[in-house]
Amino acid sequence: MDMSERVPDAVARRLPWYYRTLRELEAEETQRVSSQALGRRMGLTASQIRQDINYFGGFGQQGYGYSVPRLRQCIEQILGLDRTHRIAIVGVGNIGSAIARYPEFHRDGFEMVALFDASEARIGNKIEGLEILPADQLKQWLLQNPVQILVLATPSEYAQEIAAEAVSAGVRAIWNFTPVDLSLPDTVEVSNVHLSDSLMALTFRLHEREIHSRSEKWIRE
Amino acid sequence: MDMSERVPDAVARRLPWYYRTLRELEAEETQRVSSQALGRRMGLTASQIRQDINYFGGFGQQGYGYSVPRLRQCIEQILGLDRTHRIAIVGVGNIGSAIARYPEFHRDGFEMVALFDASEARIGNKIEGLEILPADQLKQWLLQNPVQILVLATPSEYAQEIAAEAVSAGVRAIWNFTPVDLSLPDTVEVSNVHLSDSLMALTFRLHEREIHSRSEKWIRE
Repeated sequence: MDMSERVPDAVARRLPWYYRTLRELEAEETQRVSSQALGRRMGLTASQIRQDINYFGGFGQQGYGYSVPRLRQCIEQILGLDRTHRIAIVGVGNIGSAIARYPEFHRDGFEMVALFDASEARIGNKIEGLEILPADQLKQWLLQNPVQILVLATPSEYAQEIAAEAVSAGVRAIWNFTPVDLSLPDTVEVSNVHLSDSLMALTFRLHEREIHSRSEKWIRE
Repeated sequence: MDMSERVPDAVARRLPWYYRTLRELEAEETQRVSSQALGRRMGLTASQIRQDINYFGGFGQQGYGYSVPRLRQCIEQILGLDRTHRIAIVGVGNIGSAIARYPEFHRDGFEMVALFDASEARIGNKIEGLEILPADQLKQWLLQNPVQILVLATPSEYAQEIAAEAVSAGVRAIWNFTPVDLSLPDTVEVSNVHLSDSLMALTFRLHEREIHSRSEKWIRE
């Protein structure tokens, strides 16, 4: 992959999707896949697939398709999944504790190393064998135990402050589950999971369809 | 909003973000906001803001800015949040049960009406006062109790089957937390929350930065 420039967001977003699809193909013991077949499976055009894969380095042979294990392995490396990422979670309410228990993460080299919360009722409890530490020890702890990724699942009002604290302690990637748009230096990567936004986008589309079918009905009458 | 055509995804995705930002401004008792000020807050250009808002119907006055409560109310209607949406969850493992307990949904007119799971150990238990019903009763239940949105949080291998069953029972919107790309009729709206993808996009960006700083170092040496 030519990584001399920042890869466009659309391509970056498709990378995990390619990875997931190629793993499925591997599980089905498919050895080779054409851009057409991959496109059908992913709902993309063959030319879009070829363009993306050329972006990653390009290693199909004309008329012969791609080697599934080779392409999977290449994307795995591009995604950095061939190394271990240490993760800490701040805020172990509903969402934070669900993430702590999410079994899929262990598979891809993610290692949950610490949990933090500000609630007296939670501090000292254990999730998956890890003790919940007091949130006011976060910065000190991170300085002594660097992590690559911080999961932010606090109440909204603490999100910005906790994120800034983690960044000052060396964190360079934040997986943000709060509905807050964090304001952080450009050196920090943020991936947002705005759950309410995603639900509202769904109600919007439902509502939009309703209006369409109402106006179609009106036109027909 | 001109809803005679399907609104582009990029605009649809920004709608909940506008809504969220306008609610914050209302909470701060801001009455009017200019496209410049809104842009600064959201990290968009003023012209992008004006273009989006014109899309929604356009009701700024030149040099006078937008009425915060009026714009918020308009977007609330566009999002369909002025009505109640009934939601059922299938799969109340870590993620499903976290969603069932998520307090924010009650605020915006979402009503959790049923929980389903296939595990004997879970069936009959209660979450937030709702009893967990057997997953094999899903279709029958939905036919008698229509819901607008189905939350899909089953193990991957059941996702497609359960989704198709729900659709055959009248569901038209699926909020999909499984890593599966569902294959459903065009009449169904799907909003995906692919957690692993979102985490992998983060490791990709981390890895990409590392390569950049390595090559910059190399150039300097």
